[in-house]
Amino acid sequence: MARIVMKFGGTSVANLERIRRVADLVAAEVANGNEVAVVVSAMSGETNRLVGFVDALDADRVNGHNQSMGGPIEDEYDAIVSSGEQVTSGLLAIALRRRGVKARSWLGWQIPLRTDMAHSSARIESIEDTKMNEAFSEGKVAVVAGFQGISDDGRISTLGRGGSDTSAVALAVALKADRCDIYTDVDGIYTTDPRIVPEARRLNRIAFEEMLELASLGAKVLQVRSVELAMNNNLPIRVLTSFAKDGADNPGTLVCHEDETMEERIVSGVAYSRDEAQITILQLEDTPGMVAKVCKTMSDANVIVDMIVQSISRSDNAANLTFTVGKRDLEKAVTALEAAKSDIGFEGLKSDSNVTKVSIVGIGMRSHTGVAQTMFEALAERGINVEVIATSEIKISVLINAEYTELAVRALHSAFELEVG
Amino acid sequence: MARIVMKFGGTSVANLERIRRVADLVAAEVANGNEVAVVVSAMSGETNRLVGFVDALDADRVNGHNQSMGGPIEDEYDAIVSSGEQVTSGLLAIALRRRGVKARSWLGWQIPLRTDMAHSSARIESIEDTKMNEAFSEGKVAVVAGFQGISDDGRISTLGRGGSDTSAVALAVALKADRCDIYTDVDGIYTTDPRIVPEARRLNRIAFEEMLELASLGAKVLQVRSVELAMNNNLPIRVLTSFAKDGADNPGTLVCHEDETMEERIVSGVAYSRDEAQITILQLEDTPGMVAKVCKTMSDANVIVDMIVQSISRSDNAANLTFTVGKRDLEKAVTALEAAKSDIGFEGLKSDSNVTKVSIVGIGMRSHTGVAQTMFEALAERGINVEVIATSEIKISVLINAEYTELAVRALHSAFELEVG
Repeated sequence: MARIVMKFGGTSVANLERIRRVADLVAAEVANGNEVAVVVSAMSGETNRLVGFVDALDADRVNGHNQSMGGPIEDEYDAIVSSGEQVTSGLLAIALRRRGVKARSWLGWQIPLRTDMAHSSARIESIEDTKMNEAFSEGKVAVVAGFQGISDDGRISTLGRGGSDTSAVALAVALKADRCDIYTDVDGIYTTDPRIVPEARRLNRIAFEEMLELASLGAKVLQVRSVELAMNNNLPIRVLTSFAKDGADNPGTLVCHEDETMEERIVSGVAYSRDEAQITILQLEDTPGMVAKVCKTMSDANVIVDMIVQSISRSDNAANLTFTVGKRDLEKAVTALEAAKSDIGFEGLKSDSNVTKVSIVGIGMRSHTGVAQTMFEALAERGINVEVIATSEIKISVLINAEYTELAVRALHSAFELEVG
Repeated sequence: MARIVMKFGGTSVANLERIRRVADLVAAEVANGNEVAVVVSAMSGETNRLVGFVDALDADRVNGHNQSMGGPIEDEYDAIVSSGEQVTSGLLAIALRRRGVKARSWLGWQIPLRTDMAHSSARIESIEDTKMNEAFSEGKVAVVAGFQGISDDGRISTLGRGGSDTSAVALAVALKADRCDIYTDVDGIYTTDPRIVPEARRLNRIAFEEMLELASLGAKVLQVRSVELAMNNNLPIRVLTSFAKDGADNPGTLVCHEDETMEERIVSGVAYSRDEAQITILQLEDTPGMVAKVCKTMSDANVIVDMIVQSISRSDNAANLTFTVGKRDLEKAVTALEAAKSDIGFEGLKSDSNVTKVSIVGIGMRSHTGVAQTMFEALAERGINVEVIATSEIKISVLINAEYTELAVRALHSAFELEVG
């Protein structure tokens, strides 16, 4: 007998038909003799509907009162939005009972799953397992409303968008589960986006470190926080689809600690992200501490700087500094830099949001040489200019003009022969 | 400074525009210097949407499993359906903050409002006021999700359909409020249904006992349980509309202990109910205990018997027994009687669901004579046959053919001169 946490996202519980399908999948795991906890998201569309209500009322400015006067509303946002998962967990418990499976729903405050007070983006502090273990010993499936907990003020908190993956992994750790199965609308982790490279292959296994890089670099299947948590607790995650045909093989991808077969691969995947924007500071005085000043300006404005490169300018004693920020932070970043122009000391700014970050990831890069060379040759052969480069032990990222995104992804996928197993 | 509980039903919070309107009404009470708790229902249509989901999944019969094998689902029904009020309470709290009013939402389990374990039709056992009083002392409006509590098993319970009125009154009692204002889609209690009698008048005041009778006899404005609770705790209820135009007078109707002006009125209102059905047992053996046998058959079948009359038949030693039951219980009642036919001993059954119960109610009837005479003369003049009669100290009800409903209501309204103040 194993103890398994199964997690189903919004598209997997989008309507009653799909909730029935999920109930069948859970019933099958129970029939296999396993103890099962299920974590569910809101029915897809529901969270957006509720957030729409909140945003509309939040925008009201009545009798000269403004947002700051009325105070933040994240506590109420949490009370409202968490109702989506509450509904799904109850519905799935009913569907299970009607399939002869003992089950009950659990809300965050009932477990309790305790979080800090950062409403709308809370972090999990602890998960009690006493009551849930009692339910397991009665043979009951636990259907848990994902994404939510209870904060120290005794109110509902939510973990932020995508927090259901994180609740599922955290719950699996707390319950000492053998595995966390994340059901989604794709059947595993691919060598790259199959919409761009039809030959992309599903990986049977991938190392935590690789998955973490891929998730950070743009692959959207798993949340970064959930992979970190699984890695730190050595909890295997299986990514698989909830839309498999009856009786069809559905092995998914196992995310786990690296093993020998994984280490033989040089590159495991190609990721890309269109969420980047590039800023170049022109003619920055080339004195010590200037880059630090720029970084401080960005962090004071709450903007995260990602890739960064300094280039010598032709003029004397000055350099250009190029770096990337999140696309939605671009305006904020430029405003902050303009305001600090005389303090930092530079001549001008250029910015470009028409860029893409393309990355190759693989733990095999640690022990193989020539990876960078293969990558840059493949890009150069297609006439793709690289603007910025960033590397780590197991990845190389390049910033390129967005027009070349698909071409670059295909070139790299083929250069590292990812289409062959 | 007064402490007021304001209650808003589903139509009053049907959409964002109406929630804003409710926020304005609450803000006005706060500006008057009052401490305010607000009890809200789900946005209208929301409860039906959620119940639809539950019913669809509850109807599943998979792999030979049936409803009894999977067990009852009322606990999950409560977890699901209570989310409607949860959303409204959060939204109203946001709308209040954006109007410069300090507010926070409260769920049943947060107060806590404790109930028994009868999921989906729970009864309130206690309401703690400690935490809410703390919030009042911080100047915060309490926005309470109606209709819900927490049961002894630590799960969400609901009070059954219409339970929001009851939560509001119970909360007002627990918080020692000066008054409970129930906002609805009509502007008060009327002498009768204005759709039938355009001259019907709004009453400024009505006694608890009269309101209780009117609510029991078919007036749908207030829930019977909420009136009982208010009467037992001497808590005045004001019924008024949430749709009044800005600045318009909106006095509503005050439901409170009787006073002298009320006692001068002979009849306060005319109520009618189309939810009745009539059963006649033909040729029932006229021996002692026969009526008791019939009543036991009905109570064993969980059918409530309302009006009852025995008439002597022409044949020897036999009588006809006529009584009324709820229209939706008719089939159940007839089946139970047929099954007990030989045991009870009767010749046949007649049933008729095409009947209406019309009632006059007034505490003045205690001290005035001739009320029944006026009533029956008014009905006889229009040729309306009375099938069954039931009386209490402050009401007379008659069962008539449903075709005559409006005619009878108009005749009685006019006979007791209810159109003049």
